[in-house]
Amino acid sequence: MIPDCVSSVPPDQVCRWRGEGRVAVWLHLPISLSRCAAAAATLGFTFHHARGDRAVLVLWLGPGPSRLPGYATHQIGVAGAVVDESNGKVLVVQDKNKTKNAWKFPGGLSELGENIGSTAVREVQEETGVRSEFLSLLSVRQQHNHPGAFGMSDLYLICRLRPLSRRIDFCTEECLRCEWLPLAELARTQETTPITSRVARLLLRGLERGFHTVDLPMEEIPAVYSGLFYQLYHSADR
Amino acid sequence: MIPDCVSSVPPDQVCRWRGEGRVAVWLHLPISLSRCAAAAATLGFTFHHARGDRAVLVLWLGPGPSRLPGYATHQIGVAGAVVDESNGKVLVVQDKNKTKNAWKFPGGLSELGENIGSTAVREVQEETGVRSEFLSLLSVRQQHNHPGAFGMSDLYLICRLRPLSRRIDFCTEECLRCEWLPLAELARTQETTPITSRVARLLLRGLERGFHTVDLPMEEIPAVYSGLFYQLYHSADR
Repeated sequence: MIPDCVSSVPPDQVCRWRGEGRVAVWLHLPISLSRCAAAAATLGFTFHHARGDRAVLVLWLGPGPSRLPGYATHQIGVAGAVVDESNGKVLVVQDKNKTKNAWKFPGGLSELGENIGSTAVREVQEETGVRSEFLSLLSVRQQHNHPGAFGMSDLYLICRLRPLSRRIDFCTEECLRCEWLPLAELARTQETTPITSRVARLLLRGLERGFHTVDLPMEEIPAVYSGLFYQLYHSADR
Repeated sequence: MIPDCVSSVPPDQVCRWRGEGRVAVWLHLPISLSRCAAAAATLGFTFHHARGDRAVLVLWLGPGPSRLPGYATHQIGVAGAVVDESNGKVLVVQDKNKTKNAWKFPGGLSELGENIGSTAVREVQEETGVRSEFLSLLSVRQQHNHPGAFGMSDLYLICRLRPLSRRIDFCTEECLRCEWLPLAELARTQETTPITSRVARLLLRGLERGFHTVDLPMEEIPAVYSGLFYQLYHSADR
């Protein structure tokens, strides 16, 4: 549909679309033509999504509730548990603003197009100054109505990372404290969050019985759609 | 900011906001006032997101690139591997449209606010008629620029489900075929996708050595933010 035509759409246009057997009509609007969204709304269009300088509206014409695919529903947060296997210590921070006096693994939100492991490595370096490399995925947390997710949901993934440097130079804007803490201490302290505590116990088990018992290693596989790759994580063969 | 005022904002308003030390200005617009988005764009606002009858625009005023949290970046697709442990068979379908002649686990997109396991159980019943219950998460796949994700990314999660019924009554709109296939056959056939093949081998290992070697069971935990719960998945204690 051509955006400039929205305001001059004949009043029976929706009936015509139905008559033609259409089940949905999509409307792509540059922000400069955003006034057309109000006109389209009078025909029943609603926002499907918008980003940057473009909005996409849709009108469902099929029977029953819309069967159209929705837009992205989850933000992805990733934390890195940087474990120093030589001394059983793990890198933890205390946030400056949120969850005070609680040790957590450094982490933050994935940027669009960023792999899980890359987010973990980037956020660890930004927050603590420690360089690391990705080893495995450890845990997945799903939370709906997440505070700060604009009404959407959140997946919080914790990865196991190998330290490539040890010296801490933490971001004073984000963190109050940053330390290499013995895993055994993190597993028993009250000064942490429930998920950090559980993953600390998981990592202790890894130290004791081998990390193959807790790791979900990554494998890169070509997608069915040509030219694309995906990353697959599942428990290791053991 | 009051939407109706956008078109009468003084030309030096952005300088004033900066002078007041603001790092960002948010603009919430009902679709009926969407014309204001074009006016706001001339001040530098862009769409942060839009959904239903509401758009949210933002103007970053801080130094350097925006440090504001983005909107949701991932859609969540969930498939269910319904394994009948009594005979080593698993429920598989062949899509009518996509990936022809390839056995896959039934599944589909999560609705907003729906738990991973609920999506798997719902999609399995919708596609195959088989009722089931959630047991564990098995694998996580991340793919960027996913076809059909409107430029966003996709997380595809496969769950292990226990069958509560066996009779197949599959959806002829979505599926061409639906069968209980021996896991050993699914693990070696060429008529499947790479990820289905890998998860079939994972499930075979579960049958042989116990599912605790492949499962990520779910635990429900109260969030730090009061009143909310989240679901945590990680390898089982063993």
